Amino acid sequence: LRRAREVISYGKISGAVGNYAHTPPFVEEYVCRKLGLQVSPASSQIIQRDRHAEYLSHLAIVGASLEKFAQEIRHLQRTEVLEVLEPFSFGQKGSSAMPHKKNPILCERICGLSRVLRGNLQAALENVALWHERDISHSSVERIIIPDSTTLLHYLLRKFQYILENMQVNAERMKENLNLTRGLIYSQRVLLALVDKGLSREEAYNLVQRNALSAWEEGSSFKENLLSDKEVVKHLSPSELEELFDPGYFVRNLDKIFERLKELEV
Amino acid sequence: LRRAREVISYGKISGAVGNYAHTPPFVEEYVCRKLGLQVSPASSQIIQRDRHAEYLSHLAIVGASLEKFAQEIRHLQRTEVLEVLEPFSFGQKGSSAMPHKKNPILCERICGLSRVLRGNLQAALENVALWHERDISHSSVERIIIPDSTTLLHYLLRKFQYILENMQVNAERMKENLNLTRGLIYSQRVLLALVDKGLSREEAYNLVQRNALSAWEEGSSFKENLLSDKEVVKHLSPSELEELFDPGYFVRNLDKIFERLKELEV
Amino acid sequence: LRRAREVISYGKISGAVGNYAHTPPFVEEYVCRKLGLQVSPASSQIIQRDRHAEYLSHLAIVGASLEKFAQEIRHLQRTEVLEVLEPFSFGQKGSSAMPHKKNPILCERICGLSRVLRGNLQAALENVALWHERDISHSSVERIIIPDSTTLLHYLLRKFQYILENMQVNAERMKENLNLTRGLIYSQRVLLALVDKGLSREEAYNLVQRNALSAWEEGSSFKENLLSDKEVVKHLSPSELEELFDPGYFVRNLDKIFERLKELEV
Amino acid sequence: LRRAREVISYGKISGAVGNYAHTPPFVEEYVCRKLGLQVSPASSQIIQRDRHAEYLSHLAIVGASLEKFAQEIRHLQRTEVLEVLEPFSFGQKGSSAMPHKKNPILCERICGLSRVLRGNLQAALENVALWHERDISHSSVERIIIPDSTTLLHYLLRKFQYILENMQVNAERMKENLNLTRGLIYSQRVLLALVDKGLSREEAYNLVQRNALSAWEEGSSFKENLLSDKEVVKHLSPSELEELFDPGYFVRNLDKIFERLKELEV
Repeated sequence: LRRAREVISYGKISGAVGNYAHTPPFVEEYVCRKLGLQVSPASSQIIQRDRHAEYLSHLAIVGASLEKFAQEIRHLQRTEVLEVLEPFSFGQKGSSAMPHKKNPILCERICGLSRVLRGNLQAALENVALWHERDISHSSVERIIIPDSTTLLHYLLRKFQYILENMQVNAERMKENLNLTRGLIYSQRVLLALVDKGLSREEAYNLVQRNALSAWEEGSSFKENLLSDKEVVKHLSPSELEELFDPGYFVRNLDKIFERLKELEV
Repeated sequence: LRRAREVISYGKISGAVGNYAHTPPFVEEYVCRKLGLQVSPASSQIIQRDRHAEYLSHLAIVGASLEKFAQEIRHLQRTEVLEVLEPFSFGQKGSSAMPHKKNPILCERICGLSRVLRGNLQAALENVALWHERDISHSSVERIIIPDSTTLLHYLLRKFQYILENMQVNAERMKENLNLTRGLIYSQRVLLALVDKGLSREEAYNLVQRNALSAWEEGSSFKENLLSDKEVVKHLSPSELEELFDPGYFVRNLDKIFERLKELEV
Repeated sequence: LRRAREVISYGKISGAVGNYAHTPPFVEEYVCRKLGLQVSPASSQIIQRDRHAEYLSHLAIVGASLEKFAQEIRHLQRTEVLEVLEPFSFGQKGSSAMPHKKNPILCERICGLSRVLRGNLQAALENVALWHERDISHSSVERIIIPDSTTLLHYLLRKFQYILENMQVNAERMKENLNLTRGLIYSQRVLLALVDKGLSREEAYNLVQRNALSAWEEGSSFKENLLSDKEVVKHLSPSELEELFDPGYFVRNLDKIFERLKELEV
Repeated sequence: LRRAREVISYGKISGAVGNYAHTPPFVEEYVCRKLGLQVSPASSQIIQRDRHAEYLSHLAIVGASLEKFAQEIRHLQRTEVLEVLEPFSFGQKGSSAMPHKKNPILCERICGLSRVLRGNLQAALENVALWHERDISHSSVERIIIPDSTTLLHYLLRKFQYILENMQVNAERMKENLNLTRGLIYSQRVLLALVDKGLSREEAYNLVQRNALSAWEEGSSFKENLLSDKEVVKHLSPSELEELFDPGYFVRNLDKIFERLKELEV
């Protein structure tokens, strides 16, 4: 959004065809400086519309990212997953047909409106190739798409901030869902540990896969299967195996990521 | 537009997931018949959105055709051509900088707004792949794009009808512009006449081209050049040549086209 | 697709500007008839590009519907749902990191490529407003988008047919997932039964909601809760309640829908 | 294009879900540095696709600007204007039907292909909202749109550079076309000069308009009309009027614009 603001913050007072026929350039410089705008380096009757197209492309891309986040919550809120729920106002009725059901209506709205931002960008891109020094065909378009896209994105950002600050996170259900695979999510770590013990990747893969498949198909525990597999325990002791099934291992580098993101903030 | 109306004139009363859980199909049939709608053959909570995408695609295509017609007038209205002008209301001011100048502002508006119709179609196409039997993400989109696209196209059709009924056609200038090429527009007909007289296409092409090029480059008359070319007059008499330069020849089949178009009307 | 074929099956042999200057209309009629094409009622150097835009809009809409179907399978294949799986070739490796995992890669590909069809439509719509009787700017575009869109849609249809014929449906898991709500999916039917017994909609809603909420929040059975609720059993006997929890009730009208769809087939 | 390159020059080696499960962050840093890439601050299985959408939006915007320039030449090359012609290779045949005619086929191709760049951007924007940490649906899309858009824009830039370096500029015809309005293009300057002499804007406008309209409608010279208008010559002497019709006045500030554009170059 900072780049969007930068690219659009240009002004021009260069006359009807951009040649300063009746107003010298210093007037443009003076007025733009007062308004906090840059002077457009080359203009015609109007500022060139590649700027507006880029402005709306930034709005559409931010909208697409909000769509990604909102869609994530929609996925996580489905009855079979139920790890995260968007805020549900006290007194808000559930689904009209099924009173217990809470639909992610805000996240659905964010996903929907991001499509409008993309459509408006398409119109903005067609506004670039105007005719000669004067062609007012972009004007009717911009009276619709610029207020719509700016207002909609502002609304989406406000709504998504509200969602982030008030969503319900169900950590217990997350653990349950992780265990739905009966330990299979640790399979790659087991495979790498076997390779570290000197097995070839193919040998390790086969050992892991036979225990993974039986866990998957018979509903047994992957860890128990490995502990009962004589080939496996030749290479990995029970305590070594136990350690491989530690979920904490997978999040040990997360702080690094959050630190990098913080550095991006102003 | 008739096909657009047809594809969208469907209704459904099939319950929250489209299985007629609590309302038998005959209710849907009865109500739709009363409303002049077809029954949607398969619905979920909603009518499938491929219909709405097709509806908006018809609106966008009609808009693109209006853009083509309006663009034609914009081209024809430029000072160097000036064959057709869109209506200019009595009392309407010309260009603010150049009081004599009449800009095709209505045609420019039609071209601009057709871009909005295309952008809205893009959003409608993204509305098709909704989730499962229930997903309300299309709703926020449709509250914007359906009233905007229908209202805009209605406006464009009204404006273009007004333009067609009131535009100024400058037949004199059309003739002058045809003569700008000093007869070169008749070159293909001369070429074919020479071929009819027994010359090979290549021989005929060369004869035509040398007289065409000197007309083009020296500003002389193509017909005069041909009349002075001894090779040409061997094959075509002056009266034959004269006849080849008859503009009426090129429009002799136009009635046929208009008749075919009339047959398409209801 | 039938309508797509119909709208594009037009030909023209009307000369360089569409006025039959050197070839009379009957040539066009004869040739088009031989080729199984309709004669374009009005053409310029080319057939008007609204036809091609409509053709590509039909391809994009069919693509969007395939996306909807493929997306449905992607949702149903997630580990937490696992009701339907796209076919998994014997010998195909699973996820490279997690050997047990089967990703819906075909359905993902269908979803992705439908986006390309939509992008190509956008270019086709911009091809409509060509200049005057001659403008070759659409040609470079169509050499890309027409073979790409037709080939891609053919590929998508073939792939999706393969998926439909070979997908794995897990009926057992479907039942389990239905029971995840502990009977809450029957809540609307209970509500309507209470209304049939003479309660107001508000009274019925309150009775249903208090039993639904405790089922949802405490993990108890909705049916058991109702059976223990003295207010409820005043109006509904245990055998009446039992009957309300019959899943067969909800699919009793499905045959009607399939019959209607069959009637649409050629 | 520099910003496009910058936004896309990011790499990641953070594992199957972006948590550095089996490879510590320093590996990513080392490899990216060697490749001249930045480290993506947060990644999943892949780099987030807002980058690719922004990359393709820059390509589409550059394409739209090339379309604007190419369209300008197409307008200027029409027979009625003929101020600029795109290069015409020696030996290249003219229009097949009209041997003398040179069509702006390169500029038309540039206009056409810019539409493809816009369509591809639309697909790239739909690639942003991928599911969870893993969703390969963007892959099939990018195998088409990224090579197509990068190759096409490279081609467009090369072609347009060739056009710029070899186009024919017809300065004589430009002067003739300027004179088509019989001096009316100087009307605003006359108006301002009358205001400088103490007339109200409305008085000046009326004086200018009556002389402009008679020039326009009767085909007389605007300057002669003014010289014969007793009201006008009361305020402006013949030599003052003569000076107002100097075309050099309108281009006196052009150097300033070119200097500003030069400063933007690297």
